[in-house]
This record gives sequence, structure tokens and C-alpha cells, in this order.
Amino acid sequence: MTAPAHIAIDAMSGDHGHTVAVAAALLCLRESPDLHLTLVGQRDALLSSLPVEAQALLNQRLFLQHASEVVGMDEAPSKALRGKKDSSMRVALNLVKSGPAQACVSAGNTGALMATAKFVLKTLPGIDRPAITAAIPAANGHTHMLDLGANAECSAEQLFQFAVMGSVLASVIHGLDRPRVGLLNIGTEELKGTPEVREAQELIAAASEVNYQGYIEGDGIFLGRCDVVVCDGFTGNVALKTTEGAVRLIRNFMTEEFSRNIFTRLAGLLCILVLKALGKRLDPRNYNGASFLGLNGVVIKSHGSADVKAFAHAIRVAQLEVSKDVPNRISRTLAHALQARGKLTPKPA
Amino acid sequence: MTAPAHIAIDAMSGDHGHTVAVAAALLCLRESPDLHLTLVGQRDALLSSLPVEAQALLNQRLFLQHASEVVGMDEAPSKALRGKKDSSMRVALNLVKSGPAQACVSAGNTGALMATAKFVLKTLPGIDRPAITAAIPAANGHTHMLDLGANAECSAEQLFQFAVMGSVLASVIHGLDRPRVGLLNIGTEELKGTPEVREAQELIAAASEVNYQGYIEGDGIFLGRCDVVVCDGFTGNVALKTTEGAVRLIRNFMTEEFSRNIFTRLAGLLCILVLKALGKRLDPRNYNGASFLGLNGVVIKSHGSADVKAFAHAIRVAQLEVSKDVPNRISRTLAHALQARGKLTPKPA
Repeated sequence: MTAPAHIAIDAMSGDHGHTVAVAAALLCLRESPDLHLTLVGQRDALLSSLPVEAQALLNQRLFLQHASEVVGMDEAPSKALRGKKDSSMRVALNLVKSGPAQACVSAGNTGALMATAKFVLKTLPGIDRPAITAAIPAANGHTHMLDLGANAECSAEQLFQFAVMGSVLASVIHGLDRPRVGLLNIGTEELKGTPEVREAQELIAAASEVNYQGYIEGDGIFLGRCDVVVCDGFTGNVALKTTEGAVRLIRNFMTEEFSRNIFTRLAGLLCILVLKALGKRLDPRNYNGASFLGLNGVVIKSHGSADVKAFAHAIRVAQLEVSKDVPNRISRTLAHALQARGKLTPKPA
Repeated sequence: MTAPAHIAIDAMSGDHGHTVAVAAALLCLRESPDLHLTLVGQRDALLSSLPVEAQALLNQRLFLQHASEVVGMDEAPSKALRGKKDSSMRVALNLVKSGPAQACVSAGNTGALMATAKFVLKTLPGIDRPAITAAIPAANGHTHMLDLGANAECSAEQLFQFAVMGSVLASVIHGLDRPRVGLLNIGTEELKGTPEVREAQELIAAASEVNYQGYIEGDGIFLGRCDVVVCDGFTGNVALKTTEGAVRLIRNFMTEEFSRNIFTRLAGLLCILVLKALGKRLDPRNYNGASFLGLNGVVIKSHGSADVKAFAHAIRVAQLEVSKDVPNRISRTLAHALQARGKLTPKPA
């Protein structure tokens, strides 16, 4: 599944900093003999958190790159970009820009990571702005939804670019021949929605590179009606976070109902295995790792509070996107689509 | 809880037509001795579905109003508005306009009901366009979210009007002194979101009539961080429907896990009461009845597939809004808020 890949890990950001990042890195190195990782951060901290048995990997498949600063989780993106040129985040992205690494994984602040990634790596030709996407659980598989919050407002042209990028990603990551792409709207009738959405539908439907299925409503996302759901970042972010809140409410309700009395507690104990199996299928750690698509390089954002299992999943997402050459494939597919539309052909990267 | 109210019921629309509407009407009449209802639709069909014991109520607290047409569930709103002047929906709304009824309840097509209600009843002074809202379950109570789909794009001024309307509704329906109002955004920082949302924040924060809590993210809706959540109709509709899909997915996962083998089936049987209690708390029938706010009259939209229990809930919502004089309260509160802002005072209805 994986070709040789070298990934730079921002090992200092996120709620748990280097303890989680280093442990996740070692877990992934053990799993994948072809994987190379560079941990970026304060050298002393990184060295001290490396267990003795990991020292043998040093300078073989595991590298350390010193960076003196860390971007705070609440720091303004512009401040991080201008003021922290030696942050673990920035230095990790520089390693992708300058070559040794093909991907960067960070659990740092989303806004700062996006701003710095755009500045350091630049967008692919034909891409106005990168989008954030992630695989979310759906009936019979996964749905890739984009944008999840990088762009509060999107033009029809941007939504079209998201459709192409999402389609390429779902195709190579899940091995789908022609991933089904839907455009999120508040009805399936032609006249529904905003002018941007209606115009985007025309652009997407006309592109033979995209297996367009028409408008999709919110309830279709988790029911797996499409493999890729395209929307602006405001709507995508709200929809995903609202669902997170609803799932937490249901979990609270379940806990309350099972704690009501001695009988309900006993019932809870008797179906603990079923509840655990259910929990596993919905475990957000199995979906950790959001892709920043549309950049000259692979950038994966891990959840800030990710534990070792979750962070390792984000590294695996990066590894897979590198092995499938996602940025170049996006570039080529978009070039074809724009050429067919008769637009000035952007030069593939 | 309820003062005398007269409600016109569009008894022909919805997936189940008059069978459900008539049964729900009789249920509510039995519950509330002060309630008067007019069933609107094809007289013969209505008469034939009235059980013998209900005949005694006829022309006492139950009235029939003939209407020869029915608006189809997929009919274009403009077509319904122009072409079906004797539809059960239109005639029911006419009864609110001309006086005998103070509210209309319909399980018909949302777009047609909104277009017809706006045309027949007109918006309240100071309201640009009506909004759809409903109480959704949240930790420790309910959240009123608006708009849920009537307005795909909203100006800052409209979002401000939604804040006032939602605040009035939550206050009178749930007896809250100063309902907490939040504005939905993709972050809580000042610079996040669209220009409309940022401008709306200034208008809402400046209105003493609204107990404004600042931006709220999607996960806060179901966790009950506010009593009222204000958003444009595109975002609100997608967020709610996405959640519906996610809840259905979780239910499917649960069914699958409990059906896996004889042991899991047994575990399911043992906690059936707990699962039923959980199901009851999430039962959408207990939340049926979305309010169209901002009109000269109370209009409640029942879900198209509502059963008797759910339809009866929608009638009770109408009854409560009539007894609390919601339209006039909205009108007065908005007039005060606009006056304080130094705008031309609209004349209260």
C-alpha cells in the first residue's frame, strides 16, 4: 500500500506536544519499513522523549530537525506567519518546500498551519485557495467533504476546484474508479440555493473528469449517497461540528439512561461489548488527519487533542497521499478539466 | 397553559392527507376544552373520516371548510401560488387572514406554504422575510435555531431580525426571562466568518432587547450553549439535515451491532427499556412543528410524513404561539429595537 515516503512532523504543536508526536512517529516507523520521518522541534526535548531502543533508528529512518519556536494554539495566523520563522510548524513545512520531505503533519492551530502552508508551499496552478477535507464515516464506507473551514465564502470556480480535488483524493485513497461527487444544497430542485452553488453546478456537471451526481442534501452526507461532498467552508465546518455536538449529546443521553438505576446499570454491563463495538466504529481517532488540498505538497492537520493512536492515523494519511502522488494528480486532472473548458491551460507543476 | 384559540388545519396536504390530520385534530380537541379547529379540505373526504362520536363536536368546536384543490408535495411554490387558489393550504391561510382563525397548521410542501403564507398574510412591519425555526433537543432543554431554510442568503439586517424573533419565541414558549442568543460562526474570534455575520454581530450586540452571547460554533447547538442560534437558512438547513443523517447512521450501526449474533441479540433484549427511553428522548415526533416567524399570524409547518402523534404536536405548537400572542410580541420588540437604533420606527401591527 505504501511507497517510500519522507514525512516532516511538527512535533511541538497540539495540546500534547512532543510526547504524543514522538510516540506516534515511532509507532508508524515500526509499522512501515519504507517510512522516513523527521521530527521537528526543540532538539533537547525531542531527544529526551526518545526511548533508548529508538536511538538505533536515528539518522537511519528517523531524523531530528531543530526549531526553536512553537506556534501557540490560539495564536493569530498572521502573527505566527510573520513572527515565528523558526517555529516547528514553519520548519517542517520548509522541509517539504526544500525537498527532503514530501509531506508535513501538524497538530497545531489550523489557521496558522493553513496560512503558513500557503505562504511556504504555494497553491497548485489553477487552484485559487486550498481546501480542508477529511474522510468521515458513512453508511458503507466514507465520504470526503470539502471545504471544512478554510474558506468561509467560495466562488463557483472554487467549488468547481473542490469537486476536482475531492474526486482525485477519493479516487486514489479509496481506489474508486469514478467517485460520486455531490454538491451540497438545501434541496434538489434546480432553483434552490445560492447563485454560487447554482453556477458551480453548471461548471461541475460540464467536467468529464468529475462523476457528478447533482445536488445532495445534508442528510445524504452520512448516509453515503456520494463519495465526495462539495460545499463552502462555512457550511462544511458548521455541519461537521454540529454533528459532533449531536453525537456527544446522544452519548450523554445514553450514559444517563444506563445510569438511571441498578437494572439499567446491569443492562449496560450486559451489552458493554456491543456498545464498545459501536464506539469503535464512531471513534474519531480512526478518522483523524484532515488534508489541506491544493498545495505543492501534502499537508495533514491532526486534531489538536489527538492521542498517539489518532496522531499515528494522521501520519498514515500523509504517507498514503505521498505514495499516491496526490498533489501532482490534482494538478494534472485540473489542467485537463480547464483545458476542456477552453480556459487558459495552467502549466502543471 | 392555553388560552382559547382557533386554528385552521390544512387537512389534505402531507404524505398521509386527511387521515392523520383529522385524527390529530380530534386528539387535540379532547385534550383542550378551549381549542377550536377548522379542518380545511374536500368536505366529503373530511366528513367520511370523522368517527361518529366526533359528529357532536361539529359546529361546536370543530368546523369544516371546503377547499377543492390540494397542493402537491413536489409542486413548485410559484405554481401553487398562482394556480391553486382553492387549495386546502391557501383556504386555511385565508381563514387566518380574514379572522376566524389565528393560526394555520399544514403538513404540505414547505416552499409552497412559505410562498402562500407570505402572499396571504404579509410580513410584520420591519421584517424583510419570514424565517423558519423549530425547537431542537439540547442538553438541559431546547435550542431554537433559525433560519432553517427559508432564506438561502441573509443580510446582516435579516440575521438581526432573526435574533429578535428567536429571542421573543424562546422567551414566551419556554418562559425564559432573557434567552441566550448566539450567532453561528466557524470560530469564536472576531475576524472569522462572512462579512454578513460580522456585521450582524454588531447589530445584535447593540440591541438591549437581545441577550447576546457572541459567536457560537456548530458543536454548541446541541450542547445547549444558547437558547437561540441565529444563522442563514442555507447553513441552518444543512446543519439540521446533516445531523438527521448522522443520527440515522448511528441507529443503523446500533441495529447492526445488536443483530450480530445470539449474544448481542440477547444483550439488546435486556436493555430494550433503556434503548426505548433513549429513543423517546430523540423522537422527532416530540419536536414536530416548525414555526414560520415574521408573519401577520401563526403558521406552523408539520413534517410531511408526520403521524397522528407528531401532527398533534404541531397543533399544540400553534396553540401555544397563539395563546402567547407571538406575532404581536415580535412586532413590538422589533419596533423597540429599531427605535433604539435610531431607525425609522415601523408601525406595530
